[in-house]
Amino acid sequence: MVRAIMNGCNGKMGQTITGICKDDKEIEIVAGIDLYDGIKNDYPVFKSIDACDVEADVIIDFSNAKAVDALIEYSVAKNVPVVLCTTGLSEEQLSEVDKAARKVAILRSANMSLGINTLMELLKKAALVFAPAGFDMEIVEKHHNQKLDAPSGTALALADSMNEALDQAYSYKYDRTKERAKRDPHEIGISAVRGGNIVGEHEVLFCGQDEVIEFKHTAYSKAVFAKGAVEAAKFLAGKPAGHYDMADVIAAK
Amino acid sequence: MVRAIMNGCNGKMGQTITGICKDDKEIEIVAGIDLYDGIKNDYPVFKSIDACDVEADVIIDFSNAKAVDALIEYSVAKNVPVVLCTTGLSEEQLSEVDKAARKVAILRSANMSLGINTLMELLKKAALVFAPAGFDMEIVEKHHNQKLDAPSGTALALADSMNEALDQAYSYKYDRTKERAKRDPHEIGISAVRGGNIVGEHEVLFCGQDEVIEFKHTAYSKAVFAKGAVEAAKFLAGKPAGHYDMADVIAAK
Amino acid sequence: MVRAIMNGCNGKMGQTITGICKDDKEIEIVAGIDLYDGIKNDYPVFKSIDACDVEADVIIDFSNAKAVDALIEYSVAKNVPVVLCTTGLSEEQLSEVDKAARKVAILRSANMSLGINTLMELLKKAALVFAPAGFDMEIVEKHHNQKLDAPSGTALALADSMNEALDQAYSYKYDRTKERAKRDPHEIGISAVRGGNIVGEHEVLFCGQDEVIEFKHTAYSKAVFAKGAVEAAKFLAGKPAGHYDMADVIAAK
Amino acid sequence: MVRAIMNGCNGKMGQTITGICKDDKEIEIVAGIDLYDGIKNDYPVFKSIDACDVEADVIIDFSNAKAVDALIEYSVAKNVPVVLCTTGLSEEQLSEVDKAARKVAILRSANMSLGINTLMELLKKAALVFAPAGFDMEIVEKHHNQKLDAPSGTALALADSMNEALDQAYSYKYDRTKERAKRDPHEIGISAVRGGNIVGEHEVLFCGQDEVIEFKHTAYSKAVFAKGAVEAAKFLAGKPAGHYDMADVIAAK
Repeated sequence: MVRAIMNGCNGKMGQTITGICKDDKEIEIVAGIDLYDGIKNDYPVFKSIDACDVEADVIIDFSNAKAVDALIEYSVAKNVPVVLCTTGLSEEQLSEVDKAARKVAILRSANMSLGINTLMELLKKAALVFAPAGFDMEIVEKHHNQKLDAPSGTALALADSMNEALDQAYSYKYDRTKERAKRDPHEIGISAVRGGNIVGEHEVLFCGQDEVIEFKHTAYSKAVFAKGAVEAAKFLAGKPAGHYDMADVIAAK
Repeated sequence: MVRAIMNGCNGKMGQTITGICKDDKEIEIVAGIDLYDGIKNDYPVFKSIDACDVEADVIIDFSNAKAVDALIEYSVAKNVPVVLCTTGLSEEQLSEVDKAARKVAILRSANMSLGINTLMELLKKAALVFAPAGFDMEIVEKHHNQKLDAPSGTALALADSMNEALDQAYSYKYDRTKERAKRDPHEIGISAVRGGNIVGEHEVLFCGQDEVIEFKHTAYSKAVFAKGAVEAAKFLAGKPAGHYDMADVIAAK
Repeated sequence: MVRAIMNGCNGKMGQTITGICKDDKEIEIVAGIDLYDGIKNDYPVFKSIDACDVEADVIIDFSNAKAVDALIEYSVAKNVPVVLCTTGLSEEQLSEVDKAARKVAILRSANMSLGINTLMELLKKAALVFAPAGFDMEIVEKHHNQKLDAPSGTALALADSMNEALDQAYSYKYDRTKERAKRDPHEIGISAVRGGNIVGEHEVLFCGQDEVIEFKHTAYSKAVFAKGAVEAAKFLAGKPAGHYDMADVIAAK
Repeated sequence: MVRAIMNGCNGKMGQTITGICKDDKEIEIVAGIDLYDGIKNDYPVFKSIDACDVEADVIIDFSNAKAVDALIEYSVAKNVPVVLCTTGLSEEQLSEVDKAARKVAILRSANMSLGINTLMELLKKAALVFAPAGFDMEIVEKHHNQKLDAPSGTALALADSMNEALDQAYSYKYDRTKERAKRDPHEIGISAVRGGNIVGEHEVLFCGQDEVIEFKHTAYSKAVFAKGAVEAAKFLAGKPAGHYDMADVIAAK
């Protein structure tokens, strides 16, 4: 049973992870860290990580940039691996993370969802099979109407993972209405749909002669990131020092 | 039993329609017209429509622009309605069609598919319900990689049918990657996917608060136009003079 | 501006409706009723509807069966229409509702979602077009892995609405693996997929010669019922006595 | 440039493969074998393979069981690998194939489609990641209304490939309407939809907490098998004696 410290245990993500761990027989939360103490948990909660005297195999972090300095220090000092999900770290903090990774296992990823990261790995293999066989690659992503950017960062990451497998031979095409021309075989089309409060859908198509293969990921809520973090924690416990990401978690399956 | 003359019976569409009518108990082809006589049919085939002396209730036409003049003359003279599917008519021919429609029933439509035309009718009703309730409208169409234009004419026709129902209050948005902004509620997004030899897919989305309603049409071959023409012929037999289109066929169901 | 009383305002659905009305310029909540008073609302909240002295045009009810007797009495006495969303009413209560509907407008529906109810109306029309043209009808529904019944009540309601339009000529087919036979044209296939925590997806297919038309509804949360109730309230305000359901709301659009 | 002999070159599949090879710069058909000589090809056509004196690197076979004996003899004698797509071989013939595979490279596969075979490989990996993380697996397949069996052989093959990766821990569930129960986590649900003339669609779902990952294959015509055979031929040219299948083709990419 992996023993985890939940850093930021009383935030929305911390509580979601708490719930997931309750139903998981391979991991348990043995302590939580949070300044806010208005929630009753089954584990002891400390105001700061320095105050925590509970032994653990891994730390899951969904706190905030301010709390990360103390977290890294603690992790190195006690030699406890960290699944680091807090975003918006400063350059300085990122370089501290780099240094720490020489002494302890640290996992960070652009997207913590198990589904998207697994898809990314499978798409590399799929691209290597289908692209040389003349299949066209297209991505359609759908998000809520409040999203400012298009296409989504995840859509680009999916395209990048395919393009990387194919020696960067493809360019990205966002709009076909301004010209009158056949499709260029060396492009990946990326379309962005916006509407309602869609959390996030990503559809990758390989279109060949009389067959289409489609890979689709639908997120119904941000809880998918919580699930991914728990899998990452189970993987990271006991690992030697170094940088890890979700691809390592999946490769180990 | 509706008796039909198939104008252009030995072309690809003529043969497809011949096959469909064999399995349909409400219509039979009693004569065919084609210059090419290399195919054996269950009905007599004439080189030109003038030579045809078989009585019929309706003519289905999938021939070519050159054959249309004689067709219209015959239709008026014998008072036989025509489902006119030949495209690329000249202005002069179109005006002859107009004149003829004062004396005989003539049906023409931008798209002969029963599915697309039915969808167009249903989308008007759907738009009237969902748009005022704050749902965002988006269209995604998919076609083969040899198609020159984007978006497809059918995608635009679908958008137009919704926009018409909504007093033309919406503009069409083809690309969202050039700006950083929330979605404008008064737009219909239209995305074009190109790949492989996809015959044609049209997906219309109404995206609301926590629910999405999707209408999708997939064409697997051009035979869908044949099917639509047969339904149109059964509808048109016995109708008074006038202009008709596929919407009338559907409204009569 | 329609003035609404929210019966059960501090429950989950009551609060969701409160949020929706804040963003809607055609309706406002002028009073709430709830025994629980731990939530701060922008409108006055009363412990029981009898205590409410605020004038309103309509009542939206998402309370519980116990609260319904007083609600009906109030509605009749003050002549305020009710959108009645509480389920599990006793036979006695249902007969009281019937009596009340002779004096005041009351709206009840098996499913309050605007999307599903609109789909149901459109499917009747679609069935009348496609079924006689030889299209096969199939339904696939997807729900979470805790759901006990299969197929879902909504899938059956969708099938019923098509079958009703077609003079009940179709039977329902749930399993095709026990026999070796071609599909019977007079059946509607219904498949149930179970997995994860899917809230609810319903897909209705019309499969013809070389074309498939698909109608799909995806619910992302139970908030879709809240949205439907608000639309129903705006419709019901000012209506004469009688029984109404969501189909009336949609027909009026 | 791989030089191929097309055994059964004037059949439907032989002609489809001829067309594909014309557009492929890595393979060319240098000779064809067919009893029927009514089609004009760019390559010489022989009545039987014994009569063929053109040198080649590989044979693609889409002929018939009767023609296979001579084919195997020729393949061994001349040491030319064979992509053997003819089905319905007798036990005796299969054992001849086995013997031949000790001397020459022979490739056979249950399904020649590149898409389905690639999917099968990717699903193994996906199952290993998602199943232990608590995702439910479901398959929905769609085929035309004349298909006798349900579920399709390909759907079962997809389920088998996942189950194999998971140590056969799952049973298959075809119908959920006969009971009232929560989903058993150790089952793979398989639903069969029948309608119109759908060539073949297979959808594999991994349903988790707030995310669903979907893998979908759509065949638009039987040409997908032709495409797979050509890829197999390019792979097999120059390979040592032995049994191969489509998984080897994909693994080599």
